[in-house]
Amino acid sequence: MRCEVVAVGTELLLGQIVDTNSAFIGEQLALAGIDCLFQAKVGDNPDRIRSAIASALERADAVVVCGGLGPTQDDITRDMIAEVMGVPLDRDPDLEDRIRAMFGSRGRDMPANNLRQADVPRGAAIMDQMPGTAPGLVCPVGDKVIYAVPGVPWEMQQMVEGTVIPDLRRRAGDTAVIRSRVIRTWGQSESGIAEQLAPYHEELEASGHCTLAFLASGIDGLKVRLTAKAATADEADDLLAREVEVVAGILGPSVFTVHDQSMEQVVLELCRRQGLTLGTAESMTGGLIAARLTAVPGASDVFRGAVVSYASEVKYDVLGVPRGPVVSEEAATAMAEGACRVLGCDVAVAVTGVAGPEPQEGQKPGTVWLGTCVDGEAGALLVRLPGDRERVRQFATISVLDLLRRQLVARG
Amino acid sequence: MRCEVVAVGTELLLGQIVDTNSAFIGEQLALAGIDCLFQAKVGDNPDRIRSAIASALERADAVVVCGGLGPTQDDITRDMIAEVMGVPLDRDPDLEDRIRAMFGSRGRDMPANNLRQADVPRGAAIMDQMPGTAPGLVCPVGDKVIYAVPGVPWEMQQMVEGTVIPDLRRRAGDTAVIRSRVIRTWGQSESGIAEQLAPYHEELEASGHCTLAFLASGIDGLKVRLTAKAATADEADDLLAREVEVVAGILGPSVFTVHDQSMEQVVLELCRRQGLTLGTAESMTGGLIAARLTAVPGASDVFRGAVVSYASEVKYDVLGVPRGPVVSEEAATAMAEGACRVLGCDVAVAVTGVAGPEPQEGQKPGTVWLGTCVDGEAGALLVRLPGDRERVRQFATISVLDLLRRQLVARG
Repeated sequence: MRCEVVAVGTELLLGQIVDTNSAFIGEQLALAGIDCLFQAKVGDNPDRIRSAIASALERADAVVVCGGLGPTQDDITRDMIAEVMGVPLDRDPDLEDRIRAMFGSRGRDMPANNLRQADVPRGAAIMDQMPGTAPGLVCPVGDKVIYAVPGVPWEMQQMVEGTVIPDLRRRAGDTAVIRSRVIRTWGQSESGIAEQLAPYHEELEASGHCTLAFLASGIDGLKVRLTAKAATADEADDLLAREVEVVAGILGPSVFTVHDQSMEQVVLELCRRQGLTLGTAESMTGGLIAARLTAVPGASDVFRGAVVSYASEVKYDVLGVPRGPVVSEEAATAMAEGACRVLGCDVAVAVTGVAGPEPQEGQKPGTVWLGTCVDGEAGALLVRLPGDRERVRQFATISVLDLLRRQLVARG
Repeated sequence: MRCEVVAVGTELLLGQIVDTNSAFIGEQLALAGIDCLFQAKVGDNPDRIRSAIASALERADAVVVCGGLGPTQDDITRDMIAEVMGVPLDRDPDLEDRIRAMFGSRGRDMPANNLRQADVPRGAAIMDQMPGTAPGLVCPVGDKVIYAVPGVPWEMQQMVEGTVIPDLRRRAGDTAVIRSRVIRTWGQSESGIAEQLAPYHEELEASGHCTLAFLASGIDGLKVRLTAKAATADEADDLLAREVEVVAGILGPSVFTVHDQSMEQVVLELCRRQGLTLGTAESMTGGLIAARLTAVPGASDVFRGAVVSYASEVKYDVLGVPRGPVVSEEAATAMAEGACRVLGCDVAVAVTGVAGPEPQEGQKPGTVWLGTCVDGEAGALLVRLPGDRERVRQFATISVLDLLRRQLVARG
């Protein structure tokens, strides 16, 4: 089974948007064991969209066309797919109602343009997932198929995972089940992890029933993905459960989850299990830590809040940091204590440092103090983080959460 | 003059790496006034690399092949270009010395493999820029040309800027320049903007000297991009300046920038110009607003900090919100006032609402109160936002900043 990807949008060719969608789709296809040998980017031009889809369909059994499903005049993917299929566009009444309803629920009038999104190539099916106003389409062409998904990443992703991949595997007659487990680590380099796992990795390759891949994922940690293919889901899951245990055993404390959870989820769960409420005091991270914690549904039973003390006066006046240098062990420690006091929480993390681009208090960008307060015991750790302003802020966020995680694991 | 891009690497198709190189090259071509109508990604496979290059060369006058120039066995771009050219590979002695020297200077022995990087298709020229061990190649094919550049971004970029673009422009004998300007808006749907601009859009298309495109960019706002092609940069810029003014005039107050700035940058600049310090009080957004504001370098001269009052008690105890329902006009207003008082800032925004997935205080997810406090005057606005938990948080963030922006514009 071969599937190609055609990304539509002049802004992609002009480099105004980086095409991350094709990478996502390519990864999903690979995980499902479907070959993706070719991907193309084409602008909002009828002839070129048509020919890109047509020649992709010649080479492959299926094509995912991503983008150009919006309501504006330059969104012509629908029309070009209909031409490749050699069928007219029909306006779908249910779709029309759905789109009208969606606008109604937002208390906005619907511009007539949007009804173009209710036009469907005759014979095509509409995907169940429809988070936006752009419907995803399954368009059969003989024994081949074209999938149309919007360019909006979170809409595209729901449709690819919910409809495209299952439909492709059904067509492939692939009854084998592919399952993956992701172990996430923090605190070691990719090459360090790879070295630790090298002997095991060779055995695994030899055994041939499981594959292993490393994915450096920035603030999401360094991921180790185990993938197994088996006759049944249970079989694959059992296989993975065994291997995950082995890998976690080899890697030790730098593993923060064997269930592909984020560092925030892990920390919130540890607090929940130990009956602790959590707060943050943030200078350089400017609210990033709190924002990531509260991105987790249900965080409210653990997370109390945050004091973002960006200005020194806020550190002194609100958090009770002693006047003086704010990129210091004293400041980080006092911030963590202050967070527990002001927010009335049991546990707190604090970050103060230099995000850059300019030095501060004579210290280089990347100089960061990580503070924690657990059971009234406050302390701080100095780290030097690489990268530009945003990376330093991101790495500080996951690093301080990892510091608290290790303390809570030791405590529990 | 038409130039296509072929990105080589199985890891690109598998989604293990996002292809940012093609976007960079596409942008450079556009700025140089060279049309790039098609871009492709292909794996490390001889037949497919060869056919991808060949068919690109059929459609276009030039092809930039990016990647597959390394020293390993699966780096076969050199070999495939030689086949397309119909010439053998010759080992270049100067190149061999350069590669040996480079290893010498790093005090490392050179793996024999690396000498493959000294193999050059007969008739090809070596690019002057050579930051790594992979040489860039200029490979004439009749009156057309293939450029080979490495996949390492900073190596590729030096060669594209230093050799590829100048050589293409020389060949084009065309000094036309393409320039773009991006206007960002908030508060209207993409189709609403499209309808407002429809008559103007038709005129513009007719005039043929400028094109217009819409880019729904989530939290970055809805972008309207104007692109002009002209003989000189100044001419294009003048053209764009005029059209940008027209578009901004038609769209009115929903335009928050004509210089492609983020909403945060715009709000920070308005505060700076009016000599105001800024703070936030956040419940549902959980620090997102503060995090985005502090992502802007130099925010510290305006932004004081934030109180993330996720738990109701923090709203009551720290911000002085009257006890009672917290998804309410009263709460949002009191939060904005409280932020100014606690953080000692002149201006504040506040957000309280239901991010979901669960309802709260009997209200549906997406129900959000946006609060502001300007010159001691506090107030709140009810909005209903679409999407999942994260979208609601993101939309609430830009919506409340847009609300403050409109108030500051009216004030200034």
